Amino acid sequence: MTSTTPDPRLPSAEGSDAVPVTVLGLGPMGRALASAFLDAGHPVTVWNRTPGKAGDLAERGAAVVAGSVGDAVHAGQVIVTCLIDYDAVRSTLERAACDWAGRTFVNLTSGHPAEAREMARWTSSRGIDYLDGAILTPTPAIGTPSATVLYSGAADVHAAVEVTMRALGGTAVYLGDDPGRASAYDIALLDIFGTSVSGIVHAFVLAEAEGITPRRFAAFARGVGALLPEMIDRFAEQIEAGDYPGDRSTIVSAASGIRHVIAGASGHGIDVGVLAAARSIIDRAVADGHGADGLARLTTVLRAAQ
Amino acid sequence: MTSTTPDPRLPSAEGSDAVPVTVLGLGPMGRALASAFLDAGHPVTVWNRTPGKAGDLAERGAAVVAGSVGDAVHAGQVIVTCLIDYDAVRSTLERAACDWAGRTFVNLTSGHPAEAREMARWTSSRGIDYLDGAILTPTPAIGTPSATVLYSGAADVHAAVEVTMRALGGTAVYLGDDPGRASAYDIALLDIFGTSVSGIVHAFVLAEAEGITPRRFAAFARGVGALLPEMIDRFAEQIEAGDYPGDRSTIVSAASGIRHVIAGASGHGIDVGVLAAARSIIDRAVADGHGADGLARLTTVLRAAQ
Repeated sequence: MTSTTPDPRLPSAEGSDAVPVTVLGLGPMGRALASAFLDAGHPVTVWNRTPGKAGDLAERGAAVVAGSVGDAVHAGQVIVTCLIDYDAVRSTLERAACDWAGRTFVNLTSGHPAEAREMARWTSSRGIDYLDGAILTPTPAIGTPSATVLYSGAADVHAAVEVTMRALGGTAVYLGDDPGRASAYDIALLDIFGTSVSGIVHAFVLAEAEGITPRRFAAFARGVGALLPEMIDRFAEQIEAGDYPGDRSTIVSAASGIRHVIAGASGHGIDVGVLAAARSIIDRAVADGHGADGLARLTTVLRAAQ
Repeated sequence: MTSTTPDPRLPSAEGSDAVPVTVLGLGPMGRALASAFLDAGHPVTVWNRTPGKAGDLAERGAAVVAGSVGDAVHAGQVIVTCLIDYDAVRSTLERAACDWAGRTFVNLTSGHPAEAREMARWTSSRGIDYLDGAILTPTPAIGTPSATVLYSGAADVHAAVEVTMRALGGTAVYLGDDPGRASAYDIALLDIFGTSVSGIVHAFVLAEAEGITPRRFAAFARGVGALLPEMIDRFAEQIEAGDYPGDRSTIVSAASGIRHVIAGASGHGIDVGVLAAARSIIDRAVADGHGADGLARLTTVLRAAQ
């Protein structure tokens, strides 16, 4: 079987109301995507580099497992992938020696914006209609109202898949024709998420070293988490205005606070690498004479160091 | 005028229904505290190391400005302070050569738990009834329902000031007789807050370098912030159970994500110190074989390194 003589068991793009979708890669997110397309009534073909990952998708008899990438791509009109990185996407596509005419490739793999832009050039040189996307929600949210997926790339390519991609549920946002834009949002949001998570796990360990159980600590910690959305909005306004009032909390008090945290954690022998790095930005702001300003002023310190 | 012949203008603890309160230190938080006690109908005396900080507290004719720490302490039954650090508290008290009998000292200065415990010993050796406290909310929240203040120290001392301290509004939590406990919560919460803020300001700068305006970015970023309270509760359950399922997001995907953020930020010359430190913890977890586990597993990696 070659890519030009497709497996007859596979669904076809022709003669079907629902657009046939192919999902390449069956990690947890790939399986969630395939499942959401099935639930929305699409004929779904799946493929994974190492076989046996289709699990209950195949058991449900719903998804067809293709024997090759070429067959999988041939079976779909919208080809969706969410792999470990862009290198994996490229090596997968290189195995798909098939005709991409009439097909659209939607790449939901995480990466950084330069990779997305490079992938757009690479696919373009191969005549592949390409849309880049970024999934902002965890696997269980896919197909539910809480899912959020961002897309960027050529407007006509987005228009061609917009209805099909609604199967992923929730909110879909098209961010324009720069293919790196979805990824730019993704990494900036991961920046907040990853950094916050590192602070949260560190705080649980510090609390525990002080004899505070995780559940007791969480009752207070969730309140700190709940402050952040409003703070993010306030920071945005201040950054746009270039005005950083210190009426709520100042950089100098943050400098004092972070020293207390470092002293407390160090006293228990807990790693303070993240805190020390955060402190060095705060200290730079104080040294630059911004101690009485609010915390959003730290953006200018980071910007100045670029 | 000495500390034994008090200024006759100062309010007295005797003959008043409302407990006279003294606030030492008139930084932004000290002023907010004094204002809240005034609003609750307490006679309030204030003192600051450098004069002229009483501002509208004195203009309102409400607070009496004491000429010395000793006078200020003498005028109050509950003596409250929120200074820059515990050294400042000690040097202030050393200037108050007055009789502390019948008075309670409530120290709301931020510090780390060992400092609070040492301050409890130091005050005890001087016959001062001591309660340590930590203010979890920004200055404008003081006196409003959204204020949260934690207290720890001897139960009878807490009982003596509990009603008076209600003037600060919102939620007051007594955490037991370990004087360091309020501070322990405080630094663990500051750990989350400070680390998250460092991620938020960094993300704004990264987004901006990618051509995304602060307001556009905030519309998505606030959603990430809103995920944290629920995640904190889930982490607490997992840490108590010692079970870290990777069904929502895994350490290996966090490792991949943080690399994308670092690559994206580095591409713009933005400092990645905090991210690199966070990545080293994540990488250690992967190296220890925890890649398929959920993010709360990172606590065991931090704990093991203690």
